[in-house]
Amino acid sequence: MKDCVNIGLLGVGTVGSGVLHVLEGNAAEIAKKAGCKIEIKKILVRNKQKAAQLGKKYAVTDNFEDIVNDPDIDIIVELIGREHPAKEYIASALEHGKNVVTANKDVLAKYGKELFPLAETHNVDFMFEGAVGGGIPIIRPLKSCLAANRITSVMGIVNGTTNYMLTKMLHDSMDYDDVLREAQEKGYAESDPTADVGGLDAARKLVILASIAFNTRISLDDVMVSGIETLKLCDIDYAKELGYTIKLLAVAKHDDEKGITVCVRPTMLPTSHPLAGVNDVYNAVFVEGDALGQAMFMGRGAGSLPTASAVCGDIIDVARNMVHKSTGRINCTCFDEKKLCRLEDMLSPFYIRLHAEDRPGVLAAIAAAFAAQNVGIKTLIQKQSVGDKVAELVLITYHVSELAMQLAVQTLKGLPVVKDVCSVIHVEDDSVE
Amino acid sequence: MKDCVNIGLLGVGTVGSGVLHVLEGNAAEIAKKAGCKIEIKKILVRNKQKAAQLGKKYAVTDNFEDIVNDPDIDIIVELIGREHPAKEYIASALEHGKNVVTANKDVLAKYGKELFPLAETHNVDFMFEGAVGGGIPIIRPLKSCLAANRITSVMGIVNGTTNYMLTKMLHDSMDYDDVLREAQEKGYAESDPTADVGGLDAARKLVILASIAFNTRISLDDVMVSGIETLKLCDIDYAKELGYTIKLLAVAKHDDEKGITVCVRPTMLPTSHPLAGVNDVYNAVFVEGDALGQAMFMGRGAGSLPTASAVCGDIIDVARNMVHKSTGRINCTCFDEKKLCRLEDMLSPFYIRLHAEDRPGVLAAIAAAFAAQNVGIKTLIQKQSVGDKVAELVLITYHVSELAMQLAVQTLKGLPVVKDVCSVIHVEDDSVE
Repeated sequence: MKDCVNIGLLGVGTVGSGVLHVLEGNAAEIAKKAGCKIEIKKILVRNKQKAAQLGKKYAVTDNFEDIVNDPDIDIIVELIGREHPAKEYIASALEHGKNVVTANKDVLAKYGKELFPLAETHNVDFMFEGAVGGGIPIIRPLKSCLAANRITSVMGIVNGTTNYMLTKMLHDSMDYDDVLREAQEKGYAESDPTADVGGLDAARKLVILASIAFNTRISLDDVMVSGIETLKLCDIDYAKELGYTIKLLAVAKHDDEKGITVCVRPTMLPTSHPLAGVNDVYNAVFVEGDALGQAMFMGRGAGSLPTASAVCGDIIDVARNMVHKSTGRINCTCFDEKKLCRLEDMLSPFYIRLHAEDRPGVLAAIAAAFAAQNVGIKTLIQKQSVGDKVAELVLITYHVSELAMQLAVQTLKGLPVVKDVCSVIHVEDDSVE
Repeated sequence: MKDCVNIGLLGVGTVGSGVLHVLEGNAAEIAKKAGCKIEIKKILVRNKQKAAQLGKKYAVTDNFEDIVNDPDIDIIVELIGREHPAKEYIASALEHGKNVVTANKDVLAKYGKELFPLAETHNVDFMFEGAVGGGIPIIRPLKSCLAANRITSVMGIVNGTTNYMLTKMLHDSMDYDDVLREAQEKGYAESDPTADVGGLDAARKLVILASIAFNTRISLDDVMVSGIETLKLCDIDYAKELGYTIKLLAVAKHDDEKGITVCVRPTMLPTSHPLAGVNDVYNAVFVEGDALGQAMFMGRGAGSLPTASAVCGDIIDVARNMVHKSTGRINCTCFDEKKLCRLEDMLSPFYIRLHAEDRPGVLAAIAAAFAAQNVGIKTLIQKQSVGDKVAELVLITYHVSELAMQLAVQTLKGLPVVKDVCSVIHVEDDSVE
């Protein structure tokens, strides 16, 4: 029986240093749980200063080949982040028969299809609990605990930066620009925040979650993505008035007949929904399955130690597999090929805010434009005047198709009486029938 | 490689019939995930009518020996419930080298210590995800995903009956007796509700959670248990006024110096705490770990299909282990022996409601009784008069020890001016320093 599992660690940034901290601090307990000692054999470091620092305690190298060709190394833990060279390192590690643990959502979302077969061929583990939701257990629960379910939907708040920003906008009535500046000052948002606020980060995580939940390979191109950049404070306030909270929601749904929908977009949730109360940098994933019913997993979705918690949990799991000679025990679960849902089959209510002339007959013209696309209006509120003879209208529709909504908005924009269609926001609310 | 895993199912009550439903309905997907077919080989049924019904589709028997001695049966799924003969069946199954899946919290809480070594000796799996929190993944996350953490606390709403009742009391201002009657009519409470309302059911689940979280064997005797039977509507209302919600909370905490605390009791939680918003029959478990930070798992804590979701997840996991010849991969994790915390070291704020004479000097006498035990008062509210010259007082203390509180209450009860100490309720609130 193996008495020590050796790790080659790639990268000691935020998460990597968290992993060192956890593996050191909790070494004795971890060894008991894993069934063997777990040791850092070698670390890949590019930064010379950091290398000098770590070199007092660990063997360091700036050459990946030193790690992948070391026959004593059992697990390569990739925490460099971004696509390259992380993807090439992971592929090479798998090809060399090394188990791989990573938290790299960028690589998984884009190259999962290429990498999983390598893990399978070489009968090694390829684990990534830390890639979605930081420390929150979600990948393993989906692959194991909930494996008996047909999952019908996965909805997540999976980007802490934007959730922090939306919470601030709601609670402190701050504008988007101000809140972004504050988030950057506090280190919650990067200096280039595009991937977070634009929804790409959430979309990558959704691709991973949906592929596992529905057992079919979802690619980034399949996801309809829109971010929070154009979200106005007044929409957040109107939403509140109407009983909703706006979240940047990553939603994956599966319907046996219609297929799969995968979207990341600002979404209005009833304030009573468990996800509506998930605030600040917290993340949460809400899952529905045919047997399970509804369940929610909540916690810190990022950060050094929470993500290290997930990465080290994976390391322990690989070590257990090594002890029991069962690596490769759970591999890729994309054994199906499910179709995507068409725009005309994606049904939901919508919130619309528009500016129109404030005179008799205008409402009739607007209502006719909606009616022409069979869009039913559930709630319509005429808000304050926003200029000379211009009124702000806010309305919520019944369930209509994405396509019908797009066509209705086009028609509205063409109406002379309509000055502007300011906002169209998806509503997640089954009670609006 | 094994191409079919055979199950012997003991009991087809609520959960057992759910398991049949899930294994049948999702058979194709389950086989793909498990890596082999999963079939029900034989069912133990005592009820002759049910046996006749099932007999058209499955092989049934009323003799456990037929199952445990069947060499083709790989997994025995125990869903009879209660202690006996379930415990003897599980022990016999393990001794016969069968893997066991159960949702039986009664047996696990009381006989875990006896049963886990049997599983280890025979190198088989013994899984029980359904024993706590129904369909909510919590056992496997604690044993795997969070394994790298030192868990510092686990707090759960793990009894749906009492959570339903408390929610009704809070939202509909119903008295305990009325709400119990309604819960019984709706089938949410049993005709003998003692184990639920008295906290024993929650205590059993806490024993299981705490043993795993702290890697030390906790027994039922270690748990301080009090139920909701004596909880008054007015305490729920006062709590709300003070910014708290009362939940029947199962709390396990570990402090390196002081040791382990395990309690089930009505507890006041700040309304902002994620557990405070978990209502109706929903369950939730809130976990804190040194790396993880805080995380919460929420979902349906009972019922046929949610519990079957967990049981079938375990079955799939055992099947994967059989395919990879790695049964016994994760066994008992109670490798430590941690001490229990003493009453004088258990610190928390308390809520107290008492009736006292309504005249000058009384408050001074009461304050002196608290001061004698070094109990600091944070909030004191004199409420309405409750009889001839008798006033109702409600107060919240700073953090004091369980022992000091008990002594202070004894002193109070001995004061001539104090008519009654009506309620003493534990408060879970770190902001009351």
